[in-house]
Amino acid sequence: MTSQSFMPFPPPSRLMRLGFVGGGAGAFIGTIHAQAARLSGRWEVVAGALSSDPDRARQSGRDWLLPPDRTYDDFRAMARAEAAHPQGIDAVAIVTPNHLHAPVAEAFLAQGIDVICDKPLAPSLDDALRLVEAQRTSGLVFGVTYAYAAYSMVRQARAMIRAGELGDLRQIHVEYFQEFAATLIADAGGRQPWRVDPARSGGSFTTGDIGTHAVHLASFVTGRPATRVRADFHVSGEPKDLEDTAFCQMRFGSVPGTLMVSQAAVGNQCGLRLRVFGTKAALDWNQERGDELTVTPFDAPAQRYQSGFAGGLHPEARRLARMPRGCPEGILEAWANLYTELGLAVEARRTGRALPDGMLAYPTVRDAAAGVAFVAAAVRSNGSGRWEDCGLHVPDQPGQAPGPSAEPVPA
Amino acid sequence: MTSQSFMPFPPPSRLMRLGFVGGGAGAFIGTIHAQAARLSGRWEVVAGALSSDPDRARQSGRDWLLPPDRTYDDFRAMARAEAAHPQGIDAVAIVTPNHLHAPVAEAFLAQGIDVICDKPLAPSLDDALRLVEAQRTSGLVFGVTYAYAAYSMVRQARAMIRAGELGDLRQIHVEYFQEFAATLIADAGGRQPWRVDPARSGGSFTTGDIGTHAVHLASFVTGRPATRVRADFHVSGEPKDLEDTAFCQMRFGSVPGTLMVSQAAVGNQCGLRLRVFGTKAALDWNQERGDELTVTPFDAPAQRYQSGFAGGLHPEARRLARMPRGCPEGILEAWANLYTELGLAVEARRTGRALPDGMLAYPTVRDAAAGVAFVAAAVRSNGSGRWEDCGLHVPDQPGQAPGPSAEPVPA
Amino acid sequence: MTSQSFMPFPPPSRLMRLGFVGGGAGAFIGTIHAQAARLSGRWEVVAGALSSDPDRARQSGRDWLLPPDRTYDDFRAMARAEAAHPQGIDAVAIVTPNHLHAPVAEAFLAQGIDVICDKPLAPSLDDALRLVEAQRTSGLVFGVTYAYAAYSMVRQARAMIRAGELGDLRQIHVEYFQEFAATLIADAGGRQPWRVDPARSGGSFTTGDIGTHAVHLASFVTGRPATRVRADFHVSGEPKDLEDTAFCQMRFGSVPGTLMVSQAAVGNQCGLRLRVFGTKAALDWNQERGDELTVTPFDAPAQRYQSGFAGGLHPEARRLARMPRGCPEGILEAWANLYTELGLAVEARRTGRALPDGMLAYPTVRDAAAGVAFVAAAVRSNGSGRWEDCGLHVPDQPGQAPGPSAEPVPA
Amino acid sequence: MTSQSFMPFPPPSRLMRLGFVGGGAGAFIGTIHAQAARLSGRWEVVAGALSSDPDRARQSGRDWLLPPDRTYDDFRAMARAEAAHPQGIDAVAIVTPNHLHAPVAEAFLAQGIDVICDKPLAPSLDDALRLVEAQRTSGLVFGVTYAYAAYSMVRQARAMIRAGELGDLRQIHVEYFQEFAATLIADAGGRQPWRVDPARSGGSFTTGDIGTHAVHLASFVTGRPATRVRADFHVSGEPKDLEDTAFCQMRFGSVPGTLMVSQAAVGNQCGLRLRVFGTKAALDWNQERGDELTVTPFDAPAQRYQSGFAGGLHPEARRLARMPRGCPEGILEAWANLYTELGLAVEARRTGRALPDGMLAYPTVRDAAAGVAFVAAAVRSNGSGRWEDCGLHVPDQPGQAPGPSAEPVPA
Repeated sequence: MTSQSFMPFPPPSRLMRLGFVGGGAGAFIGTIHAQAARLSGRWEVVAGALSSDPDRARQSGRDWLLPPDRTYDDFRAMARAEAAHPQGIDAVAIVTPNHLHAPVAEAFLAQGIDVICDKPLAPSLDDALRLVEAQRTSGLVFGVTYAYAAYSMVRQARAMIRAGELGDLRQIHVEYFQEFAATLIADAGGRQPWRVDPARSGGSFTTGDIGTHAVHLASFVTGRPATRVRADFHVSGEPKDLEDTAFCQMRFGSVPGTLMVSQAAVGNQCGLRLRVFGTKAALDWNQERGDELTVTPFDAPAQRYQSGFAGGLHPEARRLARMPRGCPEGILEAWANLYTELGLAVEARRTGRALPDGMLAYPTVRDAAAGVAFVAAAVRSNGSGRWEDCGLHVPDQPGQAPGPSAEPVPA
Repeated sequence: MTSQSFMPFPPPSRLMRLGFVGGGAGAFIGTIHAQAARLSGRWEVVAGALSSDPDRARQSGRDWLLPPDRTYDDFRAMARAEAAHPQGIDAVAIVTPNHLHAPVAEAFLAQGIDVICDKPLAPSLDDALRLVEAQRTSGLVFGVTYAYAAYSMVRQARAMIRAGELGDLRQIHVEYFQEFAATLIADAGGRQPWRVDPARSGGSFTTGDIGTHAVHLASFVTGRPATRVRADFHVSGEPKDLEDTAFCQMRFGSVPGTLMVSQAAVGNQCGLRLRVFGTKAALDWNQERGDELTVTPFDAPAQRYQSGFAGGLHPEARRLARMPRGCPEGILEAWANLYTELGLAVEARRTGRALPDGMLAYPTVRDAAAGVAFVAAAVRSNGSGRWEDCGLHVPDQPGQAPGPSAEPVPA
Repeated sequence: MTSQSFMPFPPPSRLMRLGFVGGGAGAFIGTIHAQAARLSGRWEVVAGALSSDPDRARQSGRDWLLPPDRTYDDFRAMARAEAAHPQGIDAVAIVTPNHLHAPVAEAFLAQGIDVICDKPLAPSLDDALRLVEAQRTSGLVFGVTYAYAAYSMVRQARAMIRAGELGDLRQIHVEYFQEFAATLIADAGGRQPWRVDPARSGGSFTTGDIGTHAVHLASFVTGRPATRVRADFHVSGEPKDLEDTAFCQMRFGSVPGTLMVSQAAVGNQCGLRLRVFGTKAALDWNQERGDELTVTPFDAPAQRYQSGFAGGLHPEARRLARMPRGCPEGILEAWANLYTELGLAVEARRTGRALPDGMLAYPTVRDAAAGVAFVAAAVRSNGSGRWEDCGLHVPDQPGQAPGPSAEPVPA
Repeated sequence: MTSQSFMPFPPPSRLMRLGFVGGGAGAFIGTIHAQAARLSGRWEVVAGALSSDPDRARQSGRDWLLPPDRTYDDFRAMARAEAAHPQGIDAVAIVTPNHLHAPVAEAFLAQGIDVICDKPLAPSLDDALRLVEAQRTSGLVFGVTYAYAAYSMVRQARAMIRAGELGDLRQIHVEYFQEFAATLIADAGGRQPWRVDPARSGGSFTTGDIGTHAVHLASFVTGRPATRVRADFHVSGEPKDLEDTAFCQMRFGSVPGTLMVSQAAVGNQCGLRLRVFGTKAALDWNQERGDELTVTPFDAPAQRYQSGFAGGLHPEARRLARMPRGCPEGILEAWANLYTELGLAVEARRTGRALPDGMLAYPTVRDAAAGVAFVAAAVRSNGSGRWEDCGLHVPDQPGQAPGPSAEPVPA
């Protein structure tokens, strides 16, 4: 553990200006983004197309205290107007239903505006790859909110693996169990919610919705992309047209593992858990106690790491601390960490300011496209009964966006 | 449990304007206040006397992105200038060393500016009572940052006790163990840090610094003020002139209990734990897992409540949720909850907007004065070897500040 | 929960006489059986063929305080001699390496002596089925030491599911992670330990060794036999000829699930965990805290059941209590519970004493044969890449052994 | 940690013969002793005066499978008869109500029979000191069942402190909360149970019943006898004549601390917890998870030790393991550990067999007398409102009983 290499985030030279597409009245995830942006201390929210319904857009804009002339009800109009505004937004946060992510992102990229997008990136791999290419050619920042990856203890886990503290990796297990969709049913007219409507969600419900979180977390922490999958889909809750449960056998390159997800697992809340077993030690991280990390070496006592100003942490984790150890870090702080890194990336692109190598680790459009590729392969495998290739095969990234460095990973 | 009475916080009509005294470079607690204020979505930080050293004040102002003309190095000048400014601050956050709380608060109260102050309120009870009187006569909002009281599970605990779910209360135990001061030593010139300097901290170090948190938490949750104390002070860490450890036998009216605090308890981080035993059930809350609350009825399985959008919560707890159950609530959210309530209180005072009865529960200057009275009594008891009266005896509060209603408490 | 039906175990009319085959110097599992038998208060150990090496057999007999004339070095001689002895053993405990279980059991069954046998029952399904048949025709007691099934909280879990407290079952997940075999290597002569020698262990190492525990536990608690498996085998530790790790997708009749086992999972000790999700609630049981059971209903606080004299327990769990709640029940007590039930079964067979229906739930030779069938199917599936039928298909049990009643299970 | 000094317990040369006084039908604690004795593998129960009521004595003897001619209804007759019997008992286990401990012990000591006695030793300090003297002059083994001290993790805690792994000790906190006496009430005739009857229990209920456990545990682990106490007694449950709750400020020589006990703490089961804070690290042990020990060094991750065959354990803890790490050790095993050590002590006295120095650590009559002295001082302090001396002041031990060596303790 080397603390001499510790390098805190530099203070902002100005607040970055953020606009929203989506997030109007009743949309929970938009308020999470907004709180995270504010908490990071690097952003101000100045514009929004919070709804495509003009009345809701106006009302939501008032609730958010946005200036009326920067409240829109059409994302394309917003992209054009903000690009032309002298104090126009630096970046847009896209918090719409999934099938709109791609067209919105393309509209803003086309105007030279950086993008922060929810996952899953798009219902189809073609859409996802088109966004990868659009980012690559534009060189803009394109962050994706796999927020769990920004918990400080997730960064500690990743740094420990990179430093070889687990030895060679031998097993990777990730699971994500929720209960909320157990009772999800069609409305009186027989219409299913958009999340479980194949036309709007692609061929998957839960594998796309939270399986992508799980596979990203596993790949992010271990440095091993998912390469093969053998999937077994189920409906565990009320009848629906898409799976609410999936059990997958996995290959992360040479490392075998499993991935289990369900949104109809009654009695579970937000049970995202990653376990990695190496030749020297195991690590165990559970989102519901996200500020802890347990590492257990072979035949030795388990060690419990905690977030905060604390001994024994790698710089990547220590840098994210806001409080002394023992003061719980919540999920909103993970979200805010993401907005801190994205704020720095956008600021760097806008101002040319240089950042130390390895300072940023926010998930990118390529990570999100890898998630879409995984979902597509899982759907294929569930149909074929066979192992399917789930790797993302795209050219390397020549774009200029300041962002996560392609650090070498121990083989 | 009655969810029909659930009443969420109303959205803000504008951002309240906040100024800071203290919080300059290196002062950790100021950044916590600022993050909490931003996260609440009800405040903007627009002015500050972040240091009394002009250079540090200027530099800190730049780091905080404050306008240069609202960056001060003298709190009295700031109070006058902001009172005269057309867009002057609505409230001041006081984050100085403890012995400056009182003069700063008085300067701003005198200018009609609401006050948010760190604890302990003042080194002497006389100072504290003067502030109580100043608030009473001014009718201004005077909040104190006993932030632990704003965790949603602390509110759940309080609501359960009020609803009689624990039965009659029989024992109250609170403890707060930290390790940071174990190694606190005088500097090369033999000068002790201000925290353990009797001249600047009054007759107590740890009882004032964290004992006040503990006793407030116990009183807030149970509705029972501390009335008598028998204290046993110690130095557990390196030699110092004031206690870093105190063990107290307590009376909360007719309910007996204990209070244990130490800041030299090696191996402990932020171990604030409250246990209340009633005739029907026990409750157990531990700050290090502040988003959980365990309630165990007589001869029955323990029940684990969690923060978030979740069944089984009282409105007072449910109202503070930002995320689904299972998404950890961190301490910064407790701080932000406080700033939400204070933002509403300040907005109500400034705009005359009415708030539902019982919506606000932020700690007040009277709560803080009760803490100072407790510390003074504990110091006396440690000297005398006897039980000492630690109740706060001041007239009722005729001031107009919108604030915590004096709700009846079950006897 | 009906406590009116509570029926404690009747006291013994005499101690049952137990003999051992295997368990000589250095054999850990034999001492576990012996301690469990003694702790149950229903057995005395009076004879043994503790080793096939005469010197070790004699020395081990002395250490166990056995009479010299009932210390054997040949199990067939022991079976004959004990059958002829006026105070001969009532039952034999078989604690040899796995490939000897079948011949030893057959030798004692042939002499009319009841059998208590370690798992896995036999390396081949043919051997296992022959034992099922031998028990069926003899009507003797044949218990198998799936000891985890005798924790009181496992019985509570089973009773809750039978009572419908989880609703309809929707998912069953079981895992068992150990680390001990990570460093297992061949000896200097290149000879692998018998556990990983295909000639002595059949086609499986870990799936047989602990996968059988896991699948039994899942079936026992849920009342659903495993019916199909799709297995993925690995070597996670040092190179060896058989798998030390297996990930299985499962069907328990109509209920899908997973089973994960590894004995080379560095950082794990005895991590046997069962989770069952129903339409009303989830249950979670973890062997490492085997005296607890967590049940979480939909959108409600989790409930933690504990072993002991405690409210809220079904009679099946309450009957096994030896201490007040809060006094930890260890794994040896689970073992002793098994020996209590086996002692009653043997006593009932020998004396004709009647037992209340449903009092005994010890695992039988049929349960053990089901485990062998599961292992065989998993081996096949790992080779074929396909789902394989893993159910046990044998005729119903006309034998007379007093034992677990075939209670109806909710469909 | 030095494993080279590891020295397992030697096997028994024969079973020791144990008799019981008390423990008849319905007496829970007698069956605990009997199970522990059997589990240890070093004892056989051969005689008993299980009740002073002849019918109950006979019936209980039958239930225990005792020979009729060694079933007594008078403890004095039993002492005489067993002393004269060629295969007479080696030791007596005394499990009567507290006020009978002393006369029974004296009767058996007078016949040269070793004694194993429940706590508290006696209602009065005079009685206790007389027993200390009787043991000292007889040189017999006199063990007392402070069973918590025989958990392997308690031994690990003690060994770590002896080895200096916590540094200098600075605080000792012990608590023991139960709920069972909350509802204890007088019978229809107005007669209180013997436990809360001053005439039969001396001046204390709970301080004697479980406070003695707590203070022994603290002293045993830290090597510091309790020297001063300032006590605050309460009735938390239904009205009764003696305290069911006591809060004590403590001195363990130069180390300050606290002791809290209640048997009317609704929602608590068997919550005996010891925390010791040193200059290097803290240790935390909780009986309800007695097979774990958490040690947290200054500003470093917490370490979780577990019982069993495991790395990182001192020989004193490792010697008590029966199972691999991860297999829970229950409280009955702690009891059995005590009977193992007592079996060795009795065998050594009877056979002259020598034992390695430091192998035995069972609590003695002097430990039990120290408990009685503590209770008497706490009662005095509660009356006087002052600190009282609670040390035991008796001459050193010239008796010959093989037993815990008086090992030097770090100052």
